[in-house]
Amino acid sequence: MQITEYLKTVQQRCDDHLNRVMPVKEERPNIIHEAMRYSVFAGGKRFRPALVLASGKVFGADEAALLDLACGIELIHTYSLIHDDLPCMDDDDLRRGKPTLHKAYGEGIAVLAGDALYALAFEVIGRCLTAESMAEIARATGTAGMIGGQAADILLEGKDITPQDLEYIHSHKTGSLITVCLTTGARLGDAAAEEITTLRDFGERVGLAFQIVDDVLDETGSTETLGKKSGADKDREKNTYPKVHGLQSSIDQAVTLIEAAKNALVLPGHDTIILELLADFVVHRVM
Amino acid sequence: MQITEYLKTVQQRCDDHLNRVMPVKEERPNIIHEAMRYSVFAGGKRFRPALVLASGKVFGADEAALLDLACGIELIHTYSLIHDDLPCMDDDDLRRGKPTLHKAYGEGIAVLAGDALYALAFEVIGRCLTAESMAEIARATGTAGMIGGQAADILLEGKDITPQDLEYIHSHKTGSLITVCLTTGARLGDAAAEEITTLRDFGERVGLAFQIVDDVLDETGSTETLGKKSGADKDREKNTYPKVHGLQSSIDQAVTLIEAAKNALVLPGHDTIILELLADFVVHRVM
Repeated sequence: MQITEYLKTVQQRCDDHLNRVMPVKEERPNIIHEAMRYSVFAGGKRFRPALVLASGKVFGADEAALLDLACGIELIHTYSLIHDDLPCMDDDDLRRGKPTLHKAYGEGIAVLAGDALYALAFEVIGRCLTAESMAEIARATGTAGMIGGQAADILLEGKDITPQDLEYIHSHKTGSLITVCLTTGARLGDAAAEEITTLRDFGERVGLAFQIVDDVLDETGSTETLGKKSGADKDREKNTYPKVHGLQSSIDQAVTLIEAAKNALVLPGHDTIILELLADFVVHRVM
Repeated sequence: MQITEYLKTVQQRCDDHLNRVMPVKEERPNIIHEAMRYSVFAGGKRFRPALVLASGKVFGADEAALLDLACGIELIHTYSLIHDDLPCMDDDDLRRGKPTLHKAYGEGIAVLAGDALYALAFEVIGRCLTAESMAEIARATGTAGMIGGQAADILLEGKDITPQDLEYIHSHKTGSLITVCLTTGARLGDAAAEEITTLRDFGERVGLAFQIVDDVLDETGSTETLGKKSGADKDREKNTYPKVHGLQSSIDQAVTLIEAAKNALVLPGHDTIILELLADFVVHRVM
């Protein structure tokens, strides 16, 4: 199976379901609902939902529950992009080829729309997850995870940092949410504790590789292909893998991480091919 | 019992528990943790936790679970104040007698600390609530509740609005979170569906009265007693009850709402005295 075809199917299913779970813009407060939809339907690849669906499928999880979880996590991802793009954060004007939300609707609406997407995410995942899994997602998106990475990223801009600091930023900023896609997806099926651990290891490597590739693309891609301003990291003196390790070494590290992730993905009696293809997809973007 | 004494005990218990559940500032990312604590320990009255504890107590809920819920909701309340104070929202410089978080730590940190408090809240309430109750809190804090009210508040600044619009803003911005304190607190005990409905009605009236009183105090209080800039609503052409209904009528409406709330709080076989005293406390601030 072509992974791009699989991703296309996931994208269609997610977009349909997101359309169902999100308030329509005719509903009050209209502008916030319109703004939420502007960002959610800006053309995301739905890579995180694909991880949720693939991981859950490995363990025979219920499809409807998986779709709720996948969409809930995509709402969280979108909220994080909106807040990261704000002038007081990364100050980005372009996202997925469109003006960022604060450029299109103003900063106040952007902050609130982000907040609202995060709230909606917990409403949606509350339908399918246990309280314990919901708390796991909260933790992965708080200071022990996503926010922790984003905070360090901003606080260390323009400073010389160690490779360890850089790995901390990347594994938290991007890796935590990617990892929790895999663990919570599997928990919706019949996954055992040691299988969850295997998926966590897989997710941590894939997540780190994903952010390294993002750094590489920021340097090598064009604004047109990226849908956001290329070279923005360099302009802002961001700490990136190419800056700290050089371009080729960064690509090599990403490839090595993906190989290690796939090799360690040993789940006897389970078909993990889609997860492996999704891992390959991460590095194929720069190969 | 004096309600101020009760509130003092609640404050002490909550502050101790918040101190336990919040990451220490020595933990990475340090500045975010420091900023979160700056706002959470700025001297809040802990009125919402008091509602949670009182409501749960009526139905014999477990004290440890109630304390987690109470603190989780206080984290959400604090996050909402941090984001509301931002320059792109209400643009306030003073809160509880101290510089607002973005004044003290910068806007980027304030956005992230708010986000992080919301995440932490779901981590904490995940210990005590069911997934369904967690989703109820998510809903009360999203566009169907708190964010909906705040969005309308900002979008309608400086415009002439109807009393219905004003009630929408107040009941959502403030009432939704207050109501969910009561319903989720009771759900931790043995409350039946019709008792939850009774508490919801009580919460909606108390919540609306609470925000009306806040409007009144903004006009009549001093910056010193309020701990935030008095007259700020007028300066920003906010839609307030005094602006739309006049000062005395606003006070009268708040008093009437509290009386109606108490009269309808009929829970046979249960002692509701603390809830009634907490309702009285809301209007005693302007009487």
